[in-house]
Amino acid sequence: MGGRVTLQDVAAAAGVSIKTVSNVVNDFDRVAPETRLRVQGVIDDLGYRPNLSARQLRSGRTGVIALAVPDLAARYFAELATAVIAQARRHAMTVLIEVTDAERSAELAMARGLGSTLIDGVILSPLALSQSDLSGKPGRVPVVLLGERDYAHTFDHVLIDNVAAARDATAHLLATGRKRIAAIGAQSGPSSATAHLRLCGYREAVHTAGAPELAELVAPATHFSPPEGAAAMRRLLALPEPPDAVFCFSDMLALGALRAAHEAGVRVPQDVAVVGFDDTEEGRYGVPSLTSVSPDKPEIARQAVALLADRIESAGSQRKPVRTEVGYELVVRESSAPATETEGTL
Amino acid sequence: MGGRVTLQDVAAAAGVSIKTVSNVVNDFDRVAPETRLRVQGVIDDLGYRPNLSARQLRSGRTGVIALAVPDLAARYFAELATAVIAQARRHAMTVLIEVTDAERSAELAMARGLGSTLIDGVILSPLALSQSDLSGKPGRVPVVLLGERDYAHTFDHVLIDNVAAARDATAHLLATGRKRIAAIGAQSGPSSATAHLRLCGYREAVHTAGAPELAELVAPATHFSPPEGAAAMRRLLALPEPPDAVFCFSDMLALGALRAAHEAGVRVPQDVAVVGFDDTEEGRYGVPSLTSVSPDKPEIARQAVALLADRIESAGSQRKPVRTEVGYELVVRESSAPATETEGTL
Repeated sequence: MGGRVTLQDVAAAAGVSIKTVSNVVNDFDRVAPETRLRVQGVIDDLGYRPNLSARQLRSGRTGVIALAVPDLAARYFAELATAVIAQARRHAMTVLIEVTDAERSAELAMARGLGSTLIDGVILSPLALSQSDLSGKPGRVPVVLLGERDYAHTFDHVLIDNVAAARDATAHLLATGRKRIAAIGAQSGPSSATAHLRLCGYREAVHTAGAPELAELVAPATHFSPPEGAAAMRRLLALPEPPDAVFCFSDMLALGALRAAHEAGVRVPQDVAVVGFDDTEEGRYGVPSLTSVSPDKPEIARQAVALLADRIESAGSQRKPVRTEVGYELVVRESSAPATETEGTL
Repeated sequence: MGGRVTLQDVAAAAGVSIKTVSNVVNDFDRVAPETRLRVQGVIDDLGYRPNLSARQLRSGRTGVIALAVPDLAARYFAELATAVIAQARRHAMTVLIEVTDAERSAELAMARGLGSTLIDGVILSPLALSQSDLSGKPGRVPVVLLGERDYAHTFDHVLIDNVAAARDATAHLLATGRKRIAAIGAQSGPSSATAHLRLCGYREAVHTAGAPELAELVAPATHFSPPEGAAAMRRLLALPEPPDAVFCFSDMLALGALRAAHEAGVRVPQDVAVVGFDDTEEGRYGVPSLTSVSPDKPEIARQAVALLADRIESAGSQRKPVRTEVGYELVVRESSAPATETEGTL
């Protein structure tokens, strides 16, 4: 074919006017459906790429939104990204995925809509940003926040109730007859919020049950990864009086904990019960299968994309930021079965 | 602040001319480093977004490349995407991730550089495309192919030797004393190529060893997912003479197979050994830990991004397509330990 395909080429091949091709490209209504179909076919066949500049200047939009997550290798965010992509498609939007590595500067850039001049809006799952980073910074592009951190209501925000979810997970372990409940995933510093909320829920449940609340049973983890889960579990199992249950703040931590228990010859759930958070496929297929808190990921994605699309479409409107709480459930599997029932089945 | 930040605003705040701000924005060399730093600081502070149209028209580039993968929830592609993002950063490029769902039409659109007018190039991991889909279609934008399928040399292509890798994995199982080796992951139809190459390698190893090559030991899988791995394993274990080893064409299949063995009370590796493919973190932390073929993912990402960056920078050059083979290794873990050594440790 040689050279760039032009509007003229498409018009000639489709047997329509240049104006008609332009109308199809710009999604104007005044083209008959069959004509639109034919022109679109020619556009696809010839590989015509409409001039972005003209299109963008006309609509003020690119049809691209960014999803900024701390870590795509963390299973939860990969599953969430998949759900966001599916939802964005329904709004005819493409998703550009940004990985922030939980760096404050990268998250801040995304919150301001920087880092790309190509995007109509941002869905941001912040880990490192502080309250003050986000206050009083009305973005150049609309931003929807994901996740548990409780920022001031500067942005639309989709979240689950982490304190309640962690409380439920811990209460479940207590209800199965466990007495010494440990937690893996405590964090300090500005990136602490998710971990902090889950720790609060854990403490509330332990306190309510009158169970021992011992500092030695709370294990920190810098990253929610299998290696850190395994290391924390090894330390807990080496205690003079080890725990009989462990609530891990993520499935990845729990996978590491299961592995460490296996290596130490400690049986799950007979000797120690384990509960995770995120309800990942790996947890569901684990040996033993993992009890886990399951945030409603499809609903998180649906709400986030819908809120962002609304902001993009009503640019300039003064709608107040919305805070939407999405549901979760505790999915009970083998790793937290009552010790008596499962005795001898491994 | 109100209203869009302009070039003038930045110039005034930085105390430089509009021309200087423009030079910084467009990455021209003629700005003193300290001036560049100051202007960039003001740009960041004010949240100035340079006009894409002008920039794009000048350089002909957007600084965005697309990575098109079949499925982000498949752990292998999430890890690969992470590696590609890291490499792209080194070339100052942003990665837009597209999920094709292994749909031929979506893959074809990416191979032609359609689907987005925003991208400078595409890294495409095709599953559904046929040879003829890709022949004679010199893309509108540069395309680098990933993965094992052996397309005509129309595009730059980064791959590993799948036949050899599958042969090594199967030969390893035979070397540990197993006799009846099964395979999980066979596929037919146009999306068969990766599975086909791995099946070839499996057959070569079985044939070389003179082991029985029985159709009943080759289990199909439409998707490389845990549920399909579990279903296939259940069928294999129900055979009158079940296998004593299983080579799974992905770690996700293998995770499902491990789970099915556990549910059936079949011990791994004592009763049946299991080997996966992809070397994912979940496999490494599995119970038992999973022996797996480990493609050199960082090197795949490095080569792919470098080849694409070269094509983008030398637009119009007639460099012949390059076919780069990247290494792999078989990482032996518990799931394929010799049956005698591990007797009694579970």
